[in-house]
Formats: sequence, structure tokens, C-alpha cells
Amino acid sequence: MKKHNYSAGPSILTQEVFEKSAQAILDFNNSGLSILEISHRSKDFVAVMEEARALALDLLGLTGKGYQALFLAGGASLEFIMAPYNLMKEGGKAAYLDSGTWASAAIKEAKTFGETVIVASSKEQNYNHIPKGYTVPEDADYFHCTSNNTIFGTQMKEFPKLNIPVVCDMSSDIFSRVLDFTQFDIIYAGAQKNMGPAGTTLVVIKEEILGKNGRVIPSMLDYAKHIKAESMYNTPPVFPVYTSLLTLQWLKNLGGVAAIEKINNEKAALLYNEIDRNPLFRGTAAVEDRSIMNVTFLLNDEAHKDTFDAMWKAANISGLPGHRSVGGYRASIYNAMPIESVQVLVDVMKALEAAV
Amino acid sequence: MKKHNYSAGPSILTQEVFEKSAQAILDFNNSGLSILEISHRSKDFVAVMEEARALALDLLGLTGKGYQALFLAGGASLEFIMAPYNLMKEGGKAAYLDSGTWASAAIKEAKTFGETVIVASSKEQNYNHIPKGYTVPEDADYFHCTSNNTIFGTQMKEFPKLNIPVVCDMSSDIFSRVLDFTQFDIIYAGAQKNMGPAGTTLVVIKEEILGKNGRVIPSMLDYAKHIKAESMYNTPPVFPVYTSLLTLQWLKNLGGVAAIEKINNEKAALLYNEIDRNPLFRGTAAVEDRSIMNVTFLLNDEAHKDTFDAMWKAANISGLPGHRSVGGYRASIYNAMPIESVQVLVDVMKALEAAV
Repeated sequence: MKKHNYSAGPSILTQEVFEKSAQAILDFNNSGLSILEISHRSKDFVAVMEEARALALDLLGLTGKGYQALFLAGGASLEFIMAPYNLMKEGGKAAYLDSGTWASAAIKEAKTFGETVIVASSKEQNYNHIPKGYTVPEDADYFHCTSNNTIFGTQMKEFPKLNIPVVCDMSSDIFSRVLDFTQFDIIYAGAQKNMGPAGTTLVVIKEEILGKNGRVIPSMLDYAKHIKAESMYNTPPVFPVYTSLLTLQWLKNLGGVAAIEKINNEKAALLYNEIDRNPLFRGTAAVEDRSIMNVTFLLNDEAHKDTFDAMWKAANISGLPGHRSVGGYRASIYNAMPIESVQVLVDVMKALEAAV
Repeated sequence: MKKHNYSAGPSILTQEVFEKSAQAILDFNNSGLSILEISHRSKDFVAVMEEARALALDLLGLTGKGYQALFLAGGASLEFIMAPYNLMKEGGKAAYLDSGTWASAAIKEAKTFGETVIVASSKEQNYNHIPKGYTVPEDADYFHCTSNNTIFGTQMKEFPKLNIPVVCDMSSDIFSRVLDFTQFDIIYAGAQKNMGPAGTTLVVIKEEILGKNGRVIPSMLDYAKHIKAESMYNTPPVFPVYTSLLTLQWLKNLGGVAAIEKINNEKAALLYNEIDRNPLFRGTAAVEDRSIMNVTFLLNDEAHKDTFDAMWKAANISGLPGHRSVGGYRASIYNAMPIESVQVLVDVMKALEAAV
């Protein structure tokens, strides 16, 4: 029996994607070759990369609007460096919103490049909400934010309207909800939550913002070079890109981001309603900032921990323990998580209430 | 029927590795989860990473000698930046041997960090040999070389003995031959030739050379930070690392580097002997520098091209055309290529001779 996998990332993909990617390892496109042994310059893989790049823009509603999509290696953490390298002027400054652990990690890297203004932070409240009411300096080279905070279960519902480039780390909620994505100039997302396995990072860039900061940029960190090379500046992570394409195709066939958003809202409502209803549990994130991707919650009485843990493990649930920064539990209910699995968890929570 | 895959990289892996990695996508270690959806912090994957790191050192004879192995993302091209970031002093200089396209690409990146001395180059002869008889400045911060030139079919047989750190890009011949690997301080290799699929890069580092150049290094480019985090500073490319481990296990079971070197020498001798014997062909690399991994050769008479191309395609061979910089043909006969496949190519060359 398949497990109900609540892992925060790498995380659940659909069974269809697992089956197709396993098959491609044994024989890719009836070529007599494995996807793992084909040249990245082969016609078959060039087609994969082109379709993945186009489909990513399509799903975000950015086709024909001056954006380019790249599938890079290195992880979203490498983007913490690439953003300032490509956008921050020598002697310039950048503005960052500090909404969680990864936002804070991005800020740390930006500081090695120049002045980094933290426009607001919820660190003192253990990042249990999204800071609001802040002002972004108009002379900053760019503004950076994190749309969803995987660890703390919070999510930005609105984004500031600015006259400077907006860079957004969407690693844990890309393709999960409809937004006006034209309000962003760079969107980046590690694949391993809503898009594919670990090993590639989607970067979506409004091309016109590049080439303006005057820095000498090492080639591998230069977005313009990657765009010019059509995301093949060096050997790309072939298999992670292919599996990401399979996931994007699955999402497109399902009806795209609007269709999955509806399902995601239903899943999140099912679980948050139970957390709010069940006297044994409480949520950790400010209600208005609750993430539809990562649902963080605590037992009101730690004495029930062993019982609850035994019960959800017996229900074939995995990956539920919360991050050490928050404790308790975190149910990551990414795009590929079926509502039936969420119901299993809710049933266990009800069963605990009945049992104690 | 499986093809005889002569692709220069990504390239052939063993059938056993394809089968095991495909199985792990459907169910990893009987966990009920796919290798693509498990947390990189899970016990099962931590064990994979630990074994891969230890086995890499073991196969190179570097266990217990002050070295650390890392499996990073980003490709070997990212190491072109990481080497100077970690080793070149501000206002310092580095020495590079220019033996091919990738050596030249590494040089280009180093130049953005500081003075870069090219100790010798075979560029004027289209890199058809390995430069020799050069002097490396003793005050350089490090010396960088490329052990095997994939495009030009040349391979360094000896390495200079120096009192400064030696950095070697072994992307296309790692684990293929016995060397005294303690003569190197940093070895790096993209996985996609002898080690696994595209998407991870092995970096082997003599730990004591780090932390001495005084630069502010962005975290993701800092070898010391990756070592401290046991190659999990950020989410590693889980599947490429796992598949690399499978390949290293296969090599270990085969008898390690000494055993594969013997087979590699036999394969190379079989093919070079035919190139030298057959009046229709000639090699492109200086004989003393011929690579045992990438065998580059030309038809003496281009008029036979269509016939030869039709013949090797009919024999189920793929990936044989040479790189545009050299033309002709390139047979990449990496570790996983069986000698039976090399015999198929040799037979086609003989058949061409008989036919024309």
C-alpha cells in the first residue's frame, strides 16, 4: 500500500509521474536508450527542455510577456547568490522581507554583495505571520520576498506593488494558486515540492531587467548567459528536468493552476477546519497568513503525543513531524497530494479525540 | 535490442544501474515511497549519501588521508568558479594548463577572479596533444589541469609534482585508471560520464587546503560549508546521487579502479589498433596522449562517410559523430561500455574496408 507522504520536500509526486519516469529509465521514447544515458544535445532531450520551458510560462500565464524560463541546477539556495549577482549594483542596495528561515538565508547571502535592507521581519514572533505595512525603499535595486514559508506554514496573500524589480522565492508554492505573475520580475523555485524531484530549479525571468547592474558575473551565475544558451549553458540535470516536465504535463491536463488551486483550497480547508474544531489541536500560524501548502499544528497536550504518533503511523502516514523550529506537526499538502490522503489524516485526528 | 551507446556524456551506464534506479522510483528500499519523494534528511537517504561519499574516497585510495568527498549540484562548470573562490587569494594568481575546450572555459572564469597564468597551451594545434615541458610558477595559489579532454581525445599520463595545490577536472576519466590520487588537492568530476546521470558533481578535497585565501565566499560556493554540512548544505540532487552510488557499488563489486583500468585498456587497444591498421581511418590525437576514454578518429577519404554512417547505424551504434571542433568520429568508451560493443564498432570498420 502506498504511503500518505506528507514530507515537506522532496515530496510527493503523482503515481503517473513515477511510472513514466521509471519507464524512461528503462527505455526513453522507444529509443532503445535510457533517459539517463542520452546526450542533452539529442533531439529528444532538446524537445523535453523546450517543452518544459514553454509549459512553465504557459501555466503561469506569462507566455509572450517578455519572460524566459530556465531549468538550472544548484538548488534555490544558489539563487540566493544569483539574484544579487545579476541585479544588485556595485555600491547599490537590495530590500528583503524576512518572513522565515529561507528568507533569512537569502538575506545572509545578499549581505556579502552590498547593503541589504530588511524592510520587515517576523523573526521575533518565530515567523508565525507574514509582516505587513512595511515600506520598500524606492532606490533599492530590487525587492526580495518568499511567497510561502515551508517551515512556519505561512504564505503571502498579497505582494507589494513596486517600481523596482520584485524577486520571489516560490519554492514551496509555485503552480499552486492563481496570481498575477506579471507582478514579479524573477520567480525561482526548487523543483522538489510542486514540480519534480530534487536536482533542478525553475527560474522565470523578465528578460528586460538583466544586464543593468554593471557587475562582472561568473558565467554559471549569469542569467543572461543561461537564457542565451536556452537553459543548456552546461549539461543540465536531465532526469530532474524530464520528471518536472511530466509533472507540468500532468498539471496542464488537470486544467492548470486554476484547477489545482481549487483542489488545494479544499484540502487546506478540510485540514484547517479540523485543527480549529478539534479541541486537541491548534494551528501555529496567524489565521490570515495560513499556507495552503504547509499546515503546521500542535497538540494542546503533549501527553497525547505517543498515542497520536502511533495512530498516524498505523494509518500509513509518513513525513508528518514538524520542523524543529516549530515542533508539533506539519502536513505538507502539495499539488500531488490527493484529498483522500488529507481525509485519512483528519480521520486520525478525530479518532484521537474519540480515544482520549 | 539495446544500442551500443558511444555518447560523450551523458553516457552509458550499466544495465544493472538502470534497472535498480528505475525500481527505486517505484519503491525505494521497500519503503512504500519513491526515491523521488523521500526527504533528503530521511534515514534511508542519509545512508545513501554517506555510502556514496565513503565509497568515492575508497575507490580513489583516499580513505583516511585527509580528504572529503562531496556530491554537489551545478555541474563541473560551477567548479570553474568554486576553485578560484576557495583557493585564489585577493590579488593572488592561479596557474592553468590549457589542454582543451573545458580547460579553456575554466581559465576564462578564473580570469574574473585575478591573474591567471596559462603555463602552456596546445590550442594552436587544435588541442591534438597534451602540452609538456612547462613550468608552473611556484608562487601561484594553485595549479589547474584537465586530466582527459573529452572533445579532443587526449589524456594526461603524468602530472607535474608541485608544492602548491593541484586542482584537476577529471570529469571524463574519473574512476577509469589507477593514479596516485594523493598528488591532487581538489579533484572534481561531473557525474555524467563514468559515475552516473547528469545532475551531480563529485568534488574530492584535501581539507587542509581550505580557508586560507581570505575571500568572502558565498555559502553555496564554499567547500568548507559543504563539508561541514556533510554534503547536505542544501537539498542535494537526490536521484543523481543515488544512481551514482549504484554505479560506484557496481565498480567496487567488479574489483575497483584497477580492475576497470585493465578492461578500459583492452577496449582502447582494440579500437586504436584497428584505427592504426585500417587504411581507411586515422586517429586525431598524438599517439602518446591518446585517451582511453574518448577515441577520436577520421576517415581518410570523406567519400566513404555516407557508407560508414549507414553501416554503424545499421549495427545499432549511436552517439558516434565527433564534436564539431574535431569532426569525424568519437567513440566514448567509458567504464560501462562493454568490450563486446567495441568489437561491434571494430567489425563495422573492417566491413567498410572490405566493402569499398
